Amino acid sequence: MVVKVYGPPYGSPKHVLVCLVEKEVDFETVPIDLLKGEHKHPDFLKLHPFGSVSLIQDEDYTLYESRAIMRYYAEKYKSQGTNLLGKTTEERGLVEQWLEVEAHNFHPPSYNMALHILFALVLGFPSDPKIIQESEETLGKVLDIYEEQLSKSKYLAGDFFSLADLSHLSLTQYLVANMGK
Amino acid sequence: MVVKVYGPPYGSPKHVLVCLVEKEVDFETVPIDLLKGEHKHPDFLKLHPFGSVSLIQDEDYTLYESRAIMRYYAEKYKSQGTNLLGKTTEERGLVEQWLEVEAHNFHPPSYNMALHILFALVLGFPSDPKIIQESEETLGKVLDIYEEQLSKSKYLAGDFFSLADLSHLSLTQYLVANMGK
Repeated sequence: MVVKVYGPPYGSPKHVLVCLVEKEVDFETVPIDLLKGEHKHPDFLKLHPFGSVSLIQDEDYTLYESRAIMRYYAEKYKSQGTNLLGKTTEERGLVEQWLEVEAHNFHPPSYNMALHILFALVLGFPSDPKIIQESEETLGKVLDIYEEQLSKSKYLAGDFFSLADLSHLSLTQYLVANMGK
Repeated sequence: MVVKVYGPPYGSPKHVLVCLVEKEVDFETVPIDLLKGEHKHPDFLKLHPFGSVSLIQDEDYTLYESRAIMRYYAEKYKSQGTNLLGKTTEERGLVEQWLEVEAHNFHPPSYNMALHILFALVLGFPSDPKIIQESEETLGKVLDIYEEQLSKSKYLAGDFFSLADLSHLSLTQYLVANMGK
């Protein structure tokens, strides 16, 4: 049985899909339409009580939260596909550090910008210029630190690609390709 | 040389200290006074460019972000002290899932409640009753799901104590012991 990945093909489920591709793990997708509120449907809440995406089912094993799922597959198939956790405990420590930085420093302002610049209209609420401006300022400072880090090493956690880099994919794509500057 | 832990003895650095105690790792603390802004001092920013706590130095290895530090020591000293990551890859997956739940579902409303009920006065800004009420409602829903989970297993990730439980310590202590209800 192949891994089932629940979610839309964007946002954090996209990270899970890319991780599975990198790890050469077969999967099938189960579309969840966030705009129709399918993530709040009782059947989905039985699998994921917090009602958000991502979620996987792998035989009788169910797991949610994209960063947890990615760590699980990166660990389970350590010697298959791309190594995404570094080679040593020290390298993995740095991967974990930058995964936390992504979650707590990069994600909030980038998400707010995507929400208010790209999705407010679709979701039916007014875009807030103050939030956009504050988020842009915050993100600018975060990216200055990234710039400094990436002048010292090829990727965030060192000279190797890892989950830390992969987890920036969705929002970076919005920032670079969709926000028009 | 023992591990140096930078930070105040509360909040997330407390989780790092408890983790090191559980793993039977010797450490010394380097106090950082957040009220005096010592986490924004240029010397500290050289070690931690984002200027927050926690941070450790272990010989020539420097690592920040409490959850990354805890994972590092739980992995490095796997067979020493309390096992904090589960015994199998599947158990570790669930530990990671509940660590993410703590970070994204439990922490934000609990932190806001601690900030506005306990620390607003000390930090010199007005406490916001609307934020308190909304946070309490959000936290109530999160704790209903915890209640359900803990009716099925002894700890969050299963019938074993783990980093997932440990990472709830500081804010739970504020909620239970300091908020007067």
